[in-house]
Parts: sequence; structure tokens; C-alpha cells
Amino acid sequence: MRILLGSGGLSTEARRAAWRGELDRFLGPVGRVLFVPYAVKDHGRVLARMGELDLWAGREAVGLHQAPDPRAAVATAPALLVGGGNTFLLLRTLQRLGLLAPIRARVSAGMPYVGISAGTNVACPTICTTNDMPVVAPRSLKALGLVPFQVNPHYFSGPIHIATPGGFVPYGGETRDDRLREFHEWNRTPVVAPWEGGWLVQEDGPTRVGGAPARLFRRGQPALDLEPGATLEPHLAPPARRGRAGSP
Amino acid sequence: MRILLGSGGLSTEARRAAWRGELDRFLGPVGRVLFVPYAVKDHGRVLARMGELDLWAGREAVGLHQAPDPRAAVATAPALLVGGGNTFLLLRTLQRLGLLAPIRARVSAGMPYVGISAGTNVACPTICTTNDMPVVAPRSLKALGLVPFQVNPHYFSGPIHIATPGGFVPYGGETRDDRLREFHEWNRTPVVAPWEGGWLVQEDGPTRVGGAPARLFRRGQPALDLEPGATLEPHLAPPARRGRAGSP
Repeated sequence: MRILLGSGGLSTEARRAAWRGELDRFLGPVGRVLFVPYAVKDHGRVLARMGELDLWAGREAVGLHQAPDPRAAVATAPALLVGGGNTFLLLRTLQRLGLLAPIRARVSAGMPYVGISAGTNVACPTICTTNDMPVVAPRSLKALGLVPFQVNPHYFSGPIHIATPGGFVPYGGETRDDRLREFHEWNRTPVVAPWEGGWLVQEDGPTRVGGAPARLFRRGQPALDLEPGATLEPHLAPPARRGRAGSP
Repeated sequence: MRILLGSGGLSTEARRAAWRGELDRFLGPVGRVLFVPYAVKDHGRVLARMGELDLWAGREAVGLHQAPDPRAAVATAPALLVGGGNTFLLLRTLQRLGLLAPIRARVSAGMPYVGISAGTNVACPTICTTNDMPVVAPRSLKALGLVPFQVNPHYFSGPIHIATPGGFVPYGGETRDDRLREFHEWNRTPVVAPWEGGWLVQEDGPTRVGGAPARLFRRGQPALDLEPGATLEPHLAPPARRGRAGSP
């Protein structure tokens, strides 16, 4: 499978240039992408904005919202690029349009899948590691499951700070690491958290970290920082706990 | 109805002292509270921690997790205090234990309800304005609906900043105002967002802002900043749009 999952946070030209370079390399000879704009309400506006920022790496982009039959458009797309916004809204729309199974089938058959932020979240088994507000309710939190791990995009470590007239003050809510620890109180799936501007890429082989570091969270194990170029899979095996034959 | 909804962020002694003072005034002669610890996994630990910080305002606190029959305990509680943690987990547990209707009935009949952070979120019509990560999936996002507005606790304005060795750098994700604007792309319910350390209080009358300012978000209207002491209801009426008789 060919999967490129961006963390988002493409707020600087340096980050956008790095992303374009990786997207160009990843897409190779593919000249056209089908853009899925459902993470935002104004589909035309996000399509235009992505173009202004040249986030297609020079490819032609067609919006799925313009297709008369979205399932047919997915069935014939040379590549899919699922953009950012609100993950709950994106998943609800994919569910309502019956697009999860068709996308899964095409990606299994080799169609390149590119996600940014919310588009990265829906590539995971569930959207349980999104940072977004649940402004709408999907039928379930189960998503595409293209990869066997969760991604937490827009990662950063330590407490949030707020700019005030008196200087930066720390926010009293949970840190991102707190939230992901909470996730592992209830779930076993490993979580990979790329910093903004970074990505994870898989091309019929192992998953590599690119563009920025990523932190890996595994239930019952210490967090592990991975540098760009690192491969994920050696660190995904569960710790040996049930090693002895006959133990429950 | 008697409802006190704290924003959370009780991370400084000054904020805790202000909260204790308000809780003491609000509870008045009530000497015992039933504490709902379901927003976290370790119920005993959060009960102990709340006690260490003296967040009961000198009252006796009994944990609902220790009650042999949670519904019976709610039916006879002198007051309910629903603590913070993860809102999705809290709502899922209340749903599984069948506690939403019994709590609603008792609060309608006059039992004082106190929420902190996640406990404030579940007092609203839905949990669609929580800041928490959906680490578990409730059956639905519908909550207690004790108040006719949504609350967004732990409010702050402007971009998040991250402390790095090179100084504070802005985070590329959505601001809180962005997220609440997204909420109003899909929902009509007004959202009141108290800053950390603040609260909203209702005692058989209008809802007052206390302890810190709060920002009010209404669909299609500019945000409105409310100072402590301000009353919410005059600002909750929808804008006159369907005024003329016979208009659709």
C-alpha cells in the first residue's frame, strides 16, 4: 500500500516546501489527484486555498464535491488527497456517502492515499486520537483502518501557553502526552504523533518518519522519540508479556 | 434549579480559594456531596486528590463509585459534584449506568448540581463543545441538558504557544475561537466559554458569570465578552430574523 500521512501545521513556507517535495516524490508519475474536502463546510474555498498554497505539488486537483457520483469518482481516482479541517465532520460525511469501503478497497489495490491532519486521522483504525472538537456526531468513531496504528497529528510536548499582555501563561488543561496516556488507559493500539510539518510514509514496505520528529506512544511502555528517517515497525511489536507457553 | 458549572483549571491556590468560596456559598447548609469520579479511570485517586486540595469547601464527600447501587445513591444525594477528566469517558459511564435520567430528575426537583470541567460539559445539551480527546465512544453525544446552552470550559483566546529551547513558538492548529466557529457552522445552540478558574451559576433564576470573564459565542453574531457578575440570559435570545408575521 502507498500511504502518505501529513501531520498538518503547514503554516510556514519552509514546511510547505518540504511537504511539496515529499508529495512530489510520493506521487511520482501520477498527474492528477482527487481531493476530498469534507473536513470543512466550504468545499470550494478549501480547494481554492490548497491551490493558492500549491499543496498539490504541481498536480491537477479535482474536488470530490464536484463529482456527480462520489463513489464512482473514488473508483477511478489515480490518487486520493484527503484534506484537513474537522475530523468528526470528515468521518461523518464519508460514512453518509458510503465511501469508507470503496476507499479502503482502492488503497488495498494500490491507489496512493495522501492525508493531511483530519485526512490522516481517518486513515487510522479509529478517530480516537484526533485533536478536534466533536462539533458533529459520526455514526461511529471507526475509520478507514489503512494502517494498524493511530496517528496523533499536530503533536507538541509540554504545556500549552497563552499569550497575555503580561507575558506567556501556562494553560491548566491536559498536555498532549496526558491525553494520549488517557487513550492508552482504554486502548492498546500504538499511537504515532508527528510534530507539525512532519509526515509518515509507507510504500509497500515499512513506515518511515519524515520532515520532523515523531513521538511513539505504546501502552505500558515509555514514549519513544523518532527522528526523520526512522522506521516505525520495529517499535510496534507489543512487549513480551505472554511469552510462556500455557500462561493465560 | 441550582447549578454551579466550573471551568476547571484550578491549578493555582488563588483560583482554588475563589472556587471554594463560591462552592461554600452555593451549597449553603448542605453538609455532604456525592462525588461523581467517572471522568477518570482511577476513582479512588481522584477522590483523594480532590480532598487534598480541599475542593469540597469543608463538606463531607462520598464517591459514587463506592455506592453499591449508583442509581439509589443519586436518588438520595443531598448534592452532586461531577469532577473533571475526560468528558467522553464520563458520558459513556453515565450512559452505561443509566444515570442521566435520574440525575436530570433530581436536579429538576432542586438538588444542587456542581460540575467541574468534564462535569460542566455533561450538564449541557451535548458534549459537542468539549476540549477532550475521544478516547472512548459514548453511545451518543447527548448529555444531561440541565441548561439550554453549551459551555466550553478552559477557555482562552488567541493561538496556542509551545515552549521550546528557542522561545515560545505558535502552534499551527485551530484556535479555540476557530473551533467554536466550526461548531456554529453545524449547530444553533449558544456557547458560553468561561476562562480557567471561572464559573457559571444559576439559582432558580438567571445565570451569572463568576470568578473570571467568559466569552459568549452565538451563531451569526459577534462574540461577546462578559465580565464576572454579568447575567447570561439577556444575550441568549436569538437575533430578530423571523419577526414579520407570515414570513417563512
